[in-house]
Amino acid sequence: MEFLPVYFDHNATTPLDAAVRAAMLPWLGQGFGNASSRHEYGRRTRAAIDLARQQVAAALNAQPTEIVFTSGGSEANNLFLKGVAACRKPGHLAVSAIEHPCILQPARQLQRSGWGLREIAVDGQGRIDPEDYAATLAQKPALLSVMLANNETGVLQDVPTLAAAARAAGAIMHSDAVQALGKLPLDFRALNAAGVQALTVSAHKINGPQGAAALVLDKRLELAPLIAGGGHERGLRSGTENVAAIVGFGVAAQLAAQRAAQTAAQTTKLRALLESALGELGATIFSAAAPRLANTTYFALPNIDGETLVGKLDRAGFALASGAACSSANPETSHVLQAMKISPELARGAVRLSLGAGNSAGEVQGFIDALRKTVGELQGLTAINAGRDER
Amino acid sequence: MEFLPVYFDHNATTPLDAAVRAAMLPWLGQGFGNASSRHEYGRRTRAAIDLARQQVAAALNAQPTEIVFTSGGSEANNLFLKGVAACRKPGHLAVSAIEHPCILQPARQLQRSGWGLREIAVDGQGRIDPEDYAATLAQKPALLSVMLANNETGVLQDVPTLAAAARAAGAIMHSDAVQALGKLPLDFRALNAAGVQALTVSAHKINGPQGAAALVLDKRLELAPLIAGGGHERGLRSGTENVAAIVGFGVAAQLAAQRAAQTAAQTTKLRALLESALGELGATIFSAAAPRLANTTYFALPNIDGETLVGKLDRAGFALASGAACSSANPETSHVLQAMKISPELARGAVRLSLGAGNSAGEVQGFIDALRKTVGELQGLTAINAGRDER
Repeated sequence: MEFLPVYFDHNATTPLDAAVRAAMLPWLGQGFGNASSRHEYGRRTRAAIDLARQQVAAALNAQPTEIVFTSGGSEANNLFLKGVAACRKPGHLAVSAIEHPCILQPARQLQRSGWGLREIAVDGQGRIDPEDYAATLAQKPALLSVMLANNETGVLQDVPTLAAAARAAGAIMHSDAVQALGKLPLDFRALNAAGVQALTVSAHKINGPQGAAALVLDKRLELAPLIAGGGHERGLRSGTENVAAIVGFGVAAQLAAQRAAQTAAQTTKLRALLESALGELGATIFSAAAPRLANTTYFALPNIDGETLVGKLDRAGFALASGAACSSANPETSHVLQAMKISPELARGAVRLSLGAGNSAGEVQGFIDALRKTVGELQGLTAINAGRDER
Repeated sequence: MEFLPVYFDHNATTPLDAAVRAAMLPWLGQGFGNASSRHEYGRRTRAAIDLARQQVAAALNAQPTEIVFTSGGSEANNLFLKGVAACRKPGHLAVSAIEHPCILQPARQLQRSGWGLREIAVDGQGRIDPEDYAATLAQKPALLSVMLANNETGVLQDVPTLAAAARAAGAIMHSDAVQALGKLPLDFRALNAAGVQALTVSAHKINGPQGAAALVLDKRLELAPLIAGGGHERGLRSGTENVAAIVGFGVAAQLAAQRAAQTAAQTTKLRALLESALGELGATIFSAAAPRLANTTYFALPNIDGETLVGKLDRAGFALASGAACSSANPETSHVLQAMKISPELARGAVRLSLGAGNSAGEVQGFIDALRKTVGELQGLTAINAGRDER
């Protein structure tokens, strides 16, 4: 058996649940088919996708007809922004400054094609700044996107309240719930009643497969397909369906909804143990004073570079992230911490530990011990280097 | 063991090869990871994707850096058209009238946003009409897309010659090679030398998984991402990579390249057997006089509705398609046959049989027997109905 580090990076991706895998395997064997085909292979494939659509809808308290399957959360977010924008004359759009790049980048593409873009400010804890939000709405944006839970800090936004204000201002409101699903109860009906017209969720963050996600969509919302073609997904997303991934998403969504409360309770306990030890080590825990996902700790230790620490911990047997995994090819400090006005010095130390249902207290304790040792070594090194500089 | 019909619909999708499945399974288990993560899980995932990129490139005689992985052929085709168009002022674009909907529909979207669109005519055999092609080039299109092999008829276009003329006219040329890969040898270097700057290929048509495809791209070509975000795939396609599907695509592409000649030889023999029987039944074989994929027979029988025949054959244990699978939700006759100026009466009879490497002579003979019986029944029924009308 090969050695693999303890996995503490569940906001990046998650291991596939055994039940999800079991549901997928037939579709990687005898059960293959193109869901558009009008023969037995096609019909059984269509039935499997229909079931998955019902499962995802039920997990989110949505209607099956409100689910548009996509290949991933990035695609769903691009579909919302570009799809809605394509049906309107350029106007204003607004997204929070701490959105995932797959909201920020398409928003900037729209800006280059004539849309006015405002990035909504957050406070030092990473929560939407109410004054800046009011100023944003005063500009009458046509489109608005604010994520439910941030991938780096885990900070939760009060999306129902934000959505109600957006609706009063005449904006179409979207929320990226990729990090929220499975960690919080999610209710699209309630969010929709508050004013949220579209929601993004993804399978691979909830112990489901990579390759399946959904844009949950108020059917009154008009949008053009990003991927046009054969007319799949009510004409909103063409392309032969990835049936194995969609089937896996269905089961994963069902399990995630069933387990969300228990997972949150479990990770809350483990995180308290972790954050108490981090406090003793003098760590700064970002967004500690804001409501956060129970599984996420984003921290920095004095005078320790985040990249270096993640590398040392990886070799010590613990897999963590420095900054968001999706932008780790980018050596800049986190745009989320920049928006929170965290100093570059502190931001360079940022390390994220994101727990999953499979993590144990023993793993967290083992991590604390390894961290203490590593920090001692690195700070000793820093002291020596500092001494060298003095000569 | 459950009964499943003999599968004769390989142009719609294909069964997963056992070796492909074996390569994928670790990535649906212990081998999970986000390829952007800088820890062991991330590094091994990145290495697996790098290997798959090399395999796909080698299968196409392309460079690994020319491969942009997408979630499917529809996405790759939309990426090419919209991605290149987004970097230019609206001008003219041209696509053949027999392209897959995932070329035709995005082309029509571009038309609605200010581009001039010409659909290039084909002759009665489904080959590009040389005069109409010359007239198209005289309009100086910025973008041009002509598929290598048609999904319905199997007709091959002389893409190198078309590309050379396109280049001389200053057009950027793309070819959808989704149906060609695995059935013909494909050489991107040679096509690129002739003037093809981008090529679409897909995994699930070559005994690989659904959920992975590629746009093979001359790196000098500037295009904007359809899915923008974390900057994956050199900034051209963001989103956490579907590692299992990409790994499967790599192995499938390697096998497809190795087996293309043998598969073509095998299906050529089986198809001759089939088409000889079809001739005896008085069938019209569409595009019979044009160069075609060796695995595809698109035919119609006198006074027999294609949908009805496909339904009866399905119950008799044979899975075929009526028209293209991807548009079978659409009750209109095939746009490909319309472009070939086939009469609506004949077009309504269209049935496609597409062979795969796994099909045997016994299966084809069994099909011929079943077809004879079914046709006898249906034509008897037609005769009775006709008799009834006479009274």
